[in-house]
Amino acid sequence: MKILVLGGDGYLGWPTAMYLANKGHDVSVVDNFHRRLWDEEIGANSLIPILSLQDRVRLWADLGKQPITPLVGDITDWAFIESVFKRFEPEAIVHYGEHRSAPFSMLSHRNAVLTQVNNVVGTLNVVYAMKEHAPESHLVKLGTMGEYGTPNIDIEEGFIEINHNGRSDVLPYPKQASSFYHLSKVHDSANIMFVCRAWDLRSTDLNQGVVYGVHTDETALDSRLATRFDYDDVWGTVLNRYCVEAAIGHPLTVYGKGGQTRGFLDIRDTLRCVELAIDNPAEIGQYRVFNQFTEQFTVLELAHKVAEGAEKLGWDAMIENIHNPRVEMEEHYYNAKHTKLLDLGLQPHYLSETLIDGLLDTVRNHAGNVNRRLLYPGHSWKEGLLDRTNKA
Amino acid sequence: MKILVLGGDGYLGWPTAMYLANKGHDVSVVDNFHRRLWDEEIGANSLIPILSLQDRVRLWADLGKQPITPLVGDITDWAFIESVFKRFEPEAIVHYGEHRSAPFSMLSHRNAVLTQVNNVVGTLNVVYAMKEHAPESHLVKLGTMGEYGTPNIDIEEGFIEINHNGRSDVLPYPKQASSFYHLSKVHDSANIMFVCRAWDLRSTDLNQGVVYGVHTDETALDSRLATRFDYDDVWGTVLNRYCVEAAIGHPLTVYGKGGQTRGFLDIRDTLRCVELAIDNPAEIGQYRVFNQFTEQFTVLELAHKVAEGAEKLGWDAMIENIHNPRVEMEEHYYNAKHTKLLDLGLQPHYLSETLIDGLLDTVRNHAGNVNRRLLYPGHSWKEGLLDRTNKA
Repeated sequence: MKILVLGGDGYLGWPTAMYLANKGHDVSVVDNFHRRLWDEEIGANSLIPILSLQDRVRLWADLGKQPITPLVGDITDWAFIESVFKRFEPEAIVHYGEHRSAPFSMLSHRNAVLTQVNNVVGTLNVVYAMKEHAPESHLVKLGTMGEYGTPNIDIEEGFIEINHNGRSDVLPYPKQASSFYHLSKVHDSANIMFVCRAWDLRSTDLNQGVVYGVHTDETALDSRLATRFDYDDVWGTVLNRYCVEAAIGHPLTVYGKGGQTRGFLDIRDTLRCVELAIDNPAEIGQYRVFNQFTEQFTVLELAHKVAEGAEKLGWDAMIENIHNPRVEMEEHYYNAKHTKLLDLGLQPHYLSETLIDGLLDTVRNHAGNVNRRLLYPGHSWKEGLLDRTNKA
Repeated sequence: MKILVLGGDGYLGWPTAMYLANKGHDVSVVDNFHRRLWDEEIGANSLIPILSLQDRVRLWADLGKQPITPLVGDITDWAFIESVFKRFEPEAIVHYGEHRSAPFSMLSHRNAVLTQVNNVVGTLNVVYAMKEHAPESHLVKLGTMGEYGTPNIDIEEGFIEINHNGRSDVLPYPKQASSFYHLSKVHDSANIMFVCRAWDLRSTDLNQGVVYGVHTDETALDSRLATRFDYDDVWGTVLNRYCVEAAIGHPLTVYGKGGQTRGFLDIRDTLRCVELAIDNPAEIGQYRVFNQFTEQFTVLELAHKVAEGAEKLGWDAMIENIHNPRVEMEEHYYNAKHTKLLDLGLQPHYLSETLIDGLLDTVRNHAGNVNRRLLYPGHSWKEGLLDRTNKA
């Protein structure tokens, strides 16, 4: 199948591109390298060194693999995305091509506007290009579980049956996002739902949890095929940060009370979920939502798991509750459904001691690259700049 | 009170500015005249001639009224809106400063992107300016009943209590907008709800129905204070179009079956609702939603009302069902709550024979200005360009 991977140079985009090419698909990847540019802006970097996209695809081909075509450009540029659709005629589009950091979107007015315009316009361009040039193609859009927030009722997969005043309807699940980034994803979802109805397009919205891990069957082929590993306060995710902290003997920094519950999944499951969506496409005119995660944890539970793993290796591991820079509930009900991908055949890789051990080991090998300054949040949603040592 | 009216040159903005100034408020209006520019683009114009904003405010002052200050600029320009907030220090902001046409937003890729970027960025700029320079001011935002779509259950005012699997929560009412314009309002609402929570701002979101009428206490003072009257397929609203059609002996053009039910209100009630919101502000940190309309009608019922009014005047009035250019249900349940503004003291002006007679009379006086080509839709949501005679 001809598959376009938007954001194919990113943490998930690159492993997805390799995975799909390895399955025999004709894969083109689009990227404008914003993610690398913003590393410079934040003063952060992937802990694990990564090649340029050009070197990645060259190495991939040199290894005798089904080639991956790099297309360099910005999907917010209509002329560019239109030319890509005309030339490549994709049958499926995997859309990772968005700004993806809640803290980044909250740093300033400029960051808020940049995040929302980038994501909304990029996605509008994609659906318009589908309408004009690939009306039967299938959009596999990466959404986020963060669109739902933390309601006091069970979270369903995209839609909920509501009984009200003696009547009933199945309606879009209410959204309560907590950053301009998460809001941009809510906006995208609403736009995509509408164009499926108005123009008979089709899309699967994958509301993904927090992804961990860096090892896939394809990255294992050659260390130079590695994907990025972010641990800083802006781009990093919580499990990564804990592992880095454990590896350098720093306390594990838990935001606030640590009762924030989220859905998590292994990077290998992300790739499989995307494949399952592609192999079982939405119907023409259908907009469907899958909640894409495999387990729920509180961020404090995760800290304890990492601390146990570290102690088994003989490392010291303390847990420190620090001032929460975000606007979020720190103790709340959370029960999110996630059966649709299991029904399609997903066999989850659950978070195991082995995985944490592997991550700790990987991180220790690159411990010399750690920038300790980036372990504490430098900016608060409510209070603005922090001095990066702001304790709870 | 110091009140900033964004979009103060528009159909509702200008009468609102006069109304609030007449109540003794210190009113500044902001506009960039996009609405007048787009008239040129569409080849449409207000049926009733209107003065420039500069002439309007000069005339208003010459009549001995509390002056209105015009501020010319674009709220998507951060430097501009920031300087307005710093200089004027508003206590309330009435936000009409958005693109407001569903058909306009659906005309092309460019129109979709332009509408969403304009509305989302303008509103982000406003809330950021509030956060930075007027954190206790009250944002009175014009939303639309179109955010809700036409669910099969009662529409509540912004939030709904959902009982699900033995638990309960009050959550944002699910949104099902049906154009890129209506979606832009959904995006705005989500963004504003978030900043009220994150930054302790306060806002009232007025989900308004379709407004009719052009006569207010202030426009009655001098014919040169008139506000615009749009009847074309892009900017016009349904009652206006029917009145124009009746006045020139053209069949009343009902889109599709005509069972589309919507909320409607008199322009005088819009002004009073905005005043009620200002006089009874949201609490710090509160985001609240009022459904702002007074009556529900189907578009076919409205056609019959206008036809009856026209026949009483001795005019011929036929009804014609034409091809529906929109994506919407033409027969559906609709029951939207609208008690919150009544509870604050709104005394509605219901749609009466007298009002329709007055509108027909006004329209007949300007019948020479009617462009008949603009009575049929020129563009379909699904099929693109129409030949403007596309029958049902």
